[in-house]
Amino acid sequence: MTAPTIKWTGSTDGHAELIDQTLLPCEVRVVSVKSVKEMWHAIKVLQIRGAPAIGIGAAYGVVLGVQEVPDSAPIEQLHDKLTEVCDYLAASRPTAVNLFWALGRMKKSAESAGVSTTVQLKEILLDEAKAIHREDAAMCRAIGANGAHLIAEGNGILTHCNAGGLATAEYGTALALMFTAHEQGKQFAVYADETRPLLQGARLTTWELCQAGIDVTLICDNMAGHLMKLGKIDLVITGADRIAANGDAANKIGTYAVAVLAKAHNIPFYIAAPSSTFDLATAGGDEIPIEQRDPREVSHPLGQQAAPDNVKVYNPAFDVTPHEYITAIITEKGLIESPDTAAVKSHLCK
Amino acid sequence: MTAPTIKWTGSTDGHAELIDQTLLPCEVRVVSVKSVKEMWHAIKVLQIRGAPAIGIGAAYGVVLGVQEVPDSAPIEQLHDKLTEVCDYLAASRPTAVNLFWALGRMKKSAESAGVSTTVQLKEILLDEAKAIHREDAAMCRAIGANGAHLIAEGNGILTHCNAGGLATAEYGTALALMFTAHEQGKQFAVYADETRPLLQGARLTTWELCQAGIDVTLICDNMAGHLMKLGKIDLVITGADRIAANGDAANKIGTYAVAVLAKAHNIPFYIAAPSSTFDLATAGGDEIPIEQRDPREVSHPLGQQAAPDNVKVYNPAFDVTPHEYITAIITEKGLIESPDTAAVKSHLCK
Repeated sequence: MTAPTIKWTGSTDGHAELIDQTLLPCEVRVVSVKSVKEMWHAIKVLQIRGAPAIGIGAAYGVVLGVQEVPDSAPIEQLHDKLTEVCDYLAASRPTAVNLFWALGRMKKSAESAGVSTTVQLKEILLDEAKAIHREDAAMCRAIGANGAHLIAEGNGILTHCNAGGLATAEYGTALALMFTAHEQGKQFAVYADETRPLLQGARLTTWELCQAGIDVTLICDNMAGHLMKLGKIDLVITGADRIAANGDAANKIGTYAVAVLAKAHNIPFYIAAPSSTFDLATAGGDEIPIEQRDPREVSHPLGQQAAPDNVKVYNPAFDVTPHEYITAIITEKGLIESPDTAAVKSHLCK
Repeated sequence: MTAPTIKWTGSTDGHAELIDQTLLPCEVRVVSVKSVKEMWHAIKVLQIRGAPAIGIGAAYGVVLGVQEVPDSAPIEQLHDKLTEVCDYLAASRPTAVNLFWALGRMKKSAESAGVSTTVQLKEILLDEAKAIHREDAAMCRAIGANGAHLIAEGNGILTHCNAGGLATAEYGTALALMFTAHEQGKQFAVYADETRPLLQGARLTTWELCQAGIDVTLICDNMAGHLMKLGKIDLVITGADRIAANGDAANKIGTYAVAVLAKAHNIPFYIAAPSSTFDLATAGGDEIPIEQRDPREVSHPLGQQAAPDNVKVYNPAFDVTPHEYITAIITEKGLIESPDTAAVKSHLCK
C-alpha cells in the first residue's frame, strides 16, 4: 500500500496519521490525528475501521489523551487521566471487541509498569501502543507466509468482502496470502465480490490490490458462480469474524453461498484469520447469533432509494459456513486442514 | 397492479397510456403517449421495457404514427406511412427481437387486410395491436394457471430479476405463478433478489408484488444461500431470456448461482417462460453468447462511484443454467418436467 492504515509520528508528544477510509476509493487522504477527541471521532465515523485497526487506533488514542497531562505533573494525575481517556474511547464504537481489548492492555501496562515519573509512564504507554501495532502486523505477515503456497502461478482467486490491510495494521488476513504470493513473484488474477450491501469489496479490496499492483477484477456477488462454471476460479480465500470450536466460521453475509458454490465446482475454499478469531466457548456455528442491520443499507444503496417506500428487507450482517465446506483455515500458527473440533483444538494448543 | 403496464384509450384516433418505469419505485406516474415520436422516446429511454411490453408499445406506436394520415387520404398514402413509421420505430431499440416481430406482424396485417379505405385500414391496424396485446396477456395468464399449483400454502419462494407484469402486457411469467396462486387465496412469502447490477428485483419485482398485496421481502443477491440454509425457501421461480433445445436456460446473471444453491439444498428450481423463448436452432447452453455490458453498471451503482477509477470489471448480462438444475419449465402449454432435448421437443409439438 502507498500509505499505512495508521502510523505514529514522533515521540510521546507526537501524533497519529491514518488513511481516511470514508473517502476511499475516490480519494486517498492521510489525516493527522492530534488529540484523543480527534481519534474518538475517527473511530466513530469509520475513518479507521476493522477490528484490529480500531484496537491500534484506540491504543494511540490513549497516548494522545495523556499528552494533556504536563510532564511535570505527579504520576497519579496521569493514572487518573488514563482511566478517563479509556472510558471516553470505549464509547466510540461500543460493540468493537478489539477496542476494549486494546484499552484493557494499555491500562494493564500502566498498572504493572513499576515506574515513578509521568514522563516514564508516557513512554511505557507509547511502547505498549506500538507493541499492539507491531504484533498485529507480525501476525498478518505470519498468516501470509503460512498460506501463500496455496496460491499457484496463474491461479484465479475469488475473495469476498475486505480482509485486507485497511482492517489491520497492514497486510490483512485473506489478502495477506495474496500480498505475500505477489512478493514471491507469482502472477495470479483476483476476482473481488463487491459485497453488498456495504460494498467493502468494491470500495476497499479492489483499492488495496490495485495499490499493490495485483491483477484484480471487480464483480457483483451474483457473478461468482458463473465465473466458477467458466473455470476462472482455482481457489477461494476469505477472512472470518468468529470461528466456533468445531471450525464453523461466521463471516460477511454471502460467504456461505460462495462456499457452497465452491464445493459444487470442486474448488478449495480457504479462510484466513488469526487464532484470536476462534471462540472456543461456542461449540458450533448454530450458536453464533446473526446481527440484523439497518434495512436502508439494502433498500438505499449508497444512500439512494432503489426499492419501494417501506419495503420489507432482510439484512443479516453475517452468515455461517459449516466446517465441512472449509478446505483449511490459515492462522499465524499454520494451517488447520479439514477443520473440526479435534483439529481446531490441537492447532490452538500448539 | 394498480395501473396496467400499457393500455389503449379510445378508437383509432385515441392514444396509449403507460406507467413510466424509469420513475419506479419512487413514483407511479401514468404518461399519455399521443404520437409515434413520443412512443419512440418511451421505448428508447426505457419508460416501457421488457421484450413483450416493447412489442406491444411498438404496435400501438404504429397506430399513433398512421393517425398523421387524414381519413380522407387515399389508402396508398397510409401504406407508405406505415412503412415509414415501422422503420422509424425499429430504430428505437435495435436489439429488441420482439420489437421487430411486432412491427412485422403489423405490416403483414395491413398487407393481407383486403380493405379499400384508409379508415378501414386504420381499424385493422388498431385491431392487430390490440390482438398482440391480448395474446400476450392470455399467454401470461396461461403460464400462471399452469404453474400456480407448484406454490403451496405457506411456501417461501425465491425469485431473481424481474419476470413480472411490467415486462409484459400484464402478469408476467415467473410472477404470473405468484399472482395466480395469490388469486386462489394462497398465503406465501416471496424473497426478491435485488439483482445487481441494475437492481430490477429491488426496483420492479418488489413494487409489483407489493401492489398485488403479496408478502415480499427484499434481499441482496448474496443472502439467498443463507435463507436456503435457514429453511426459508421452498421453491425458486425465475424467468428466462432464451432456452436452448436441450432445456439449458439463459437468464439474468446470478440465476445459475441460485440454481446451484437450490440443488445443494434440495429445493426445486422452476423457470417460467413462453414457448417463444425456446431457440431450437441452439442445441445447448454453451452455444448461447453472453453479452458483456458497461463496466460502470458495476463500478457505479445507481450512478455513484463505488470502486477505484478505471478498476477492471467483469459484467456479463446473463448466465446459463444447465437443464440438469431445472426441475421444470412452465410455458403457456403446460409443464416440461426434467427438461432435456426429447422433453422440450415433445412439449413444443403439442
